[in-house]
Amino acid sequence: MKAYIGLDIGGTKILGVLYNENKEALASVKKKTKATGGLEVVLEQIYKVVDGLLEDSEVELVGIGGGSPGIIIDESTIKFAPNIPFNGLNLGKIMEEKYGVPFILGNDVNVAMYGEWKASSISEAKSILGVYVGTGLGGAIIIDGKMYTGLGGAAEFGHMNVNPDGVICGCGSKGCLESYASKTGMQKAINAAIRKGRETVLEDYLKSDGDVIKSSSLQKAYVAGDHVAIEVIDDGMDYLARGMATLVNLFHPELIILGGGVMESMGALLKDRIVEKTKGYAMIGLADEVRFELSHLSDDAGVYGAFQLIYDKLN
Amino acid sequence: MKAYIGLDIGGTKILGVLYNENKEALASVKKKTKATGGLEVVLEQIYKVVDGLLEDSEVELVGIGGGSPGIIIDESTIKFAPNIPFNGLNLGKIMEEKYGVPFILGNDVNVAMYGEWKASSISEAKSILGVYVGTGLGGAIIIDGKMYTGLGGAAEFGHMNVNPDGVICGCGSKGCLESYASKTGMQKAINAAIRKGRETVLEDYLKSDGDVIKSSSLQKAYVAGDHVAIEVIDDGMDYLARGMATLVNLFHPELIILGGGVMESMGALLKDRIVEKTKGYAMIGLADEVRFELSHLSDDAGVYGAFQLIYDKLN
Repeated sequence: MKAYIGLDIGGTKILGVLYNENKEALASVKKKTKATGGLEVVLEQIYKVVDGLLEDSEVELVGIGGGSPGIIIDESTIKFAPNIPFNGLNLGKIMEEKYGVPFILGNDVNVAMYGEWKASSISEAKSILGVYVGTGLGGAIIIDGKMYTGLGGAAEFGHMNVNPDGVICGCGSKGCLESYASKTGMQKAINAAIRKGRETVLEDYLKSDGDVIKSSSLQKAYVAGDHVAIEVIDDGMDYLARGMATLVNLFHPELIILGGGVMESMGALLKDRIVEKTKGYAMIGLADEVRFELSHLSDDAGVYGAFQLIYDKLN
Repeated sequence: MKAYIGLDIGGTKILGVLYNENKEALASVKKKTKATGGLEVVLEQIYKVVDGLLEDSEVELVGIGGGSPGIIIDESTIKFAPNIPFNGLNLGKIMEEKYGVPFILGNDVNVAMYGEWKASSISEAKSILGVYVGTGLGGAIIIDGKMYTGLGGAAEFGHMNVNPDGVICGCGSKGCLESYASKTGMQKAINAAIRKGRETVLEDYLKSDGDVIKSSSLQKAYVAGDHVAIEVIDDGMDYLARGMATLVNLFHPELIILGGGVMESMGALLKDRIVEKTKGYAMIGLADEVRFELSHLSDDAGVYGAFQLIYDKLN
């Protein structure tokens, strides 16, 4: 039986799913990325995911699709990635040599949007933006039914310059939206609050979550009324709304999809307020006709989109 | 002889040009907008421009095209305009009733870009942004050979949110790029410097220029080494570069065109520095493949584009 693998390589975790030709998921493996361990460690984690999927299965692997953070050139090479040690890496070449099947790579957020688009009925809208809030903050643009990437690196929504006096970002610039409105940004604010001696249940959660708080922990602390969690999330979502207002003023799109780990955990709680604030920050009236929806595939969009990418390429 | 009028209705001046069917300019009239005088005063100024063009000419007027600041709906109505008292005005209806010929309206910057695009050879590029720095700061987007306006109001580059603690903008939000990187923004900084008692030749220029400094006066003061002029322009262009870096990160376009009154006067002086700073503020390497060019039609692009708009509609 022919099978495909979709890989979602994130800054925190690597998720792989094995699909058959009927687009049914056969198996799933998830590993931590261990991004601070360097390139070889992350590659080993990727191999473990792929090997784990193929173990004990009697499928004939015909191709692998992947989504990775960063700017992807020629569907193979990561030109630059802020949260993962992949700068300049031709991941396509490495994977094709190791597994002997075609490999195709896209920007993680573009790939997630592609997955969502393929799986749902959003394709009628002529202008769609995807805003994905997770470890980082990524974006995707669909115009007239096509993924828009410009010269290859478009839709880096996390790297809007939103504060001239802002903090240094992993991308080399400063005051980027991602430094405020992503888990990495919120983690910095949590650390600062803890250093100041403020009491928060997040301190306990962090002991099990690791360096960066889990979205589910943020959600639990928020719902429990933890003051630090509420403040950090409110500030982050305020910045997110400013960024989304800029997107409305620049693209005036029919539809904005909110996705990513933070939205999967907290979107239902936060969406109305984010939309209201976005309307307040956008030019008068401009956001009124824009539809805002939570991602339907949520965390699975990335891995499904990666599968669709290679499936569509080979079929 | 059949003739067309192109109108460029700006926050500072209204320029009209009469064209024959061979796209040759026959006459030109320019009036101050008198935007602070209110709607009726501005309409009178528009009539004076059109009447002035038709006076003593023996042409048969067949149509009028116009460009105006703001968000334009149905090629006729100005939904919202920040620097001109036109909110909600159906200018198309008024003009068609008064002159008895078809009238078509577009956003001033989109129209200018359309003019430049029609008149030059930039149309090969698949993704082009126009950044127009004048009284305000406007934008235009061409993707795959088509003007991209989303639901109608896209490309409001002046209303990127660039400073969370920023000054209130005419659009109702605060911290907009236009409040820093346009003549209106720079004028505020000049006023503040004068109030602080700093010496500057701009104080003299303002006596003849009126409320908002002319681009040519800025240019003269800058070249003469006036400290206030240098500081104000440097700060404005620094913000412009931050905004352009955001545009690079969002659109990764093949080509960015710099136009508008400020660029017409000072583009040759400032372009290299703006591009260098933009590369510094953009994600690492992302701006390297982007081409930056000064507008070729400069101040005439708006009026020529307005003519082309009605010419293309009727032919």
